[in-house]
Amino acid sequence: MKSHTEYLTFNVPARMGFLNITPQLEQIVRTSGVKEGLLLCNAMHITASVFVNDDEPGLHEDYKAWLEGLAPFDPSPQRYKHNRTGEDNADAHMKRQVMGREVVIAITNGKLDFGPWEQVFYGEFDGRRSKRVLAKVIGE
Amino acid sequence: MKSHTEYLTFNVPARMGFLNITPQLEQIVRTSGVKEGLLLCNAMHITASVFVNDDEPGLHEDYKAWLEGLAPFDPSPQRYKHNRTGEDNADAHMKRQVMGREVVIAITNGKLDFGPWEQVFYGEFDGRRSKRVLAKVIGE
Amino acid sequence: MKSHTEYLTFNVPARMGFLNITPQLEQIVRTSGVKEGLLLCNAMHITASVFVNDDEPGLHEDYKAWLEGLAPFDPSPQRYKHNRTGEDNADAHMKRQVMGREVVIAITNGKLDFGPWEQVFYGEFDGRRSKRVLAKVIGE
Repeated sequence: MKSHTEYLTFNVPARMGFLNITPQLEQIVRTSGVKEGLLLCNAMHITASVFVNDDEPGLHEDYKAWLEGLAPFDPSPQRYKHNRTGEDNADAHMKRQVMGREVVIAITNGKLDFGPWEQVFYGEFDGRRSKRVLAKVIGE
Repeated sequence: MKSHTEYLTFNVPARMGFLNITPQLEQIVRTSGVKEGLLLCNAMHITASVFVNDDEPGLHEDYKAWLEGLAPFDPSPQRYKHNRTGEDNADAHMKRQVMGREVVIAITNGKLDFGPWEQVFYGEFDGRRSKRVLAKVIGE
Repeated sequence: MKSHTEYLTFNVPARMGFLNITPQLEQIVRTSGVKEGLLLCNAMHITASVFVNDDEPGLHEDYKAWLEGLAPFDPSPQRYKHNRTGEDNADAHMKRQVMGREVVIAITNGKLDFGPWEQVFYGEFDGRRSKRVLAKVIGE
C-alpha cells in the first residue's frame, strides 16, 4: 500500500468564503502515484469545511445567506456561550458542521473519480488568517 | 491491497425521495472479495446524498418535511441566486449538504459492519432523471 | 495492509450530550501498529454522531440549543410521523444528520494527524442507554 500526505494553507480575506481546491487535489493524486485508492481531504481547523458541490458563484452566495440564517454571526456573549471565552466565532463552528469537515473521494485509474459537476471546496467561516487542509492518499 | 469499483444508477420519479441501497452494497462487498477494509459510497451528483439511517417510512416523511423547512424549494430567482442561471434546484444543493455526500463503512469478516438499525440510503433532492452513485471497496 | 477493529460502548445519562473520545482513539491507533493510513470512527446507532470539533463546554451548550432549534424534541405523533411508531426520538434522527455519522482521520507517523484544536466527540441525541461506536484502522 502506498500513502502520500500533503498540507495546503489558505487565507481567505473575508469571514466567509469558498475556494475551489480541485486542481491542487488532482496534482496531489498525480504526485502520489496511486492508481486505485482513496483520497481523504479535511479541514484541520474546526471553523472550516471541505465539501463537494458546484462551482457556481450564485450558489455560493446562496450558501452564505442560508448558513447565515441557520447560524447567524453574533460576537456577543448573549446568543452563544462560546463567545464568553473571548471568541466571536461560535457561529462558524455551527456552519462548519452543516457543510462538513471532510470528503473521501475515490481514485480510479489514477484520477479522482468524480461525477459531472463535482468540485471540491475549502469552506471558510472565520477567515482572515491562515488555516491548513490535509490531503492524504492511500492505495496502490 | 484489493480494490473494486462499481457505479449504480437510480431514477427517482419524484423531486425528493429515498431508496434503500443496502442490498446492492452488500453484493458489491461480496463481489470484491475484501474481508477487512472500507467501503466508500457517494452520490456522483451534487443534488443527491448517500446517508445511513433508519428504514422507516414515517421518518422519511419527517426528513422531507424538515428539509423542506430548512431549504424550501423555490424555482424563482428571488430567493436563490443559483436559480438565475436557469436552474430551479438551489434548494436541492442545500438539502444535500445537510444529509451529506457520502458514507464510509467498515468491512469486517467480509461484511458491512453495521449497528442494529443501520441501512444505507440514496437521497434524491432533484429527481426525475438518472443519476449515478459510486461504490468503491479497498482492503484485503 | 494491516487492519484493526474495536467497538466502544457509551451510555450518556442525558437525552443529549457529547463525550470526548480522542484518548480512546489514540490508544486504538497505537494498538493497531499502523504508521500510515486511515481511521474510520462511526456511531453504530442512528440517533448518535461522531464528529470533530472543539472541547469547549460553552460551545457544547451552544450546539445543544442550536440543534434543539433546528429539530425540536417532541414525542407527540403530531409533529413527527416517526413518533407514531411508538418511538419518541424522531428529532434525534435529524440532529444526527446535522452533526454527521462518522469521521475519517489521517494517521501519519503513527499518530492521528490533527489540526491544533481537533478533538473527536461522541454525540448522543437519544441517550440513557448503551450504544456502540466502531473504530477501524487500515494502513501499514
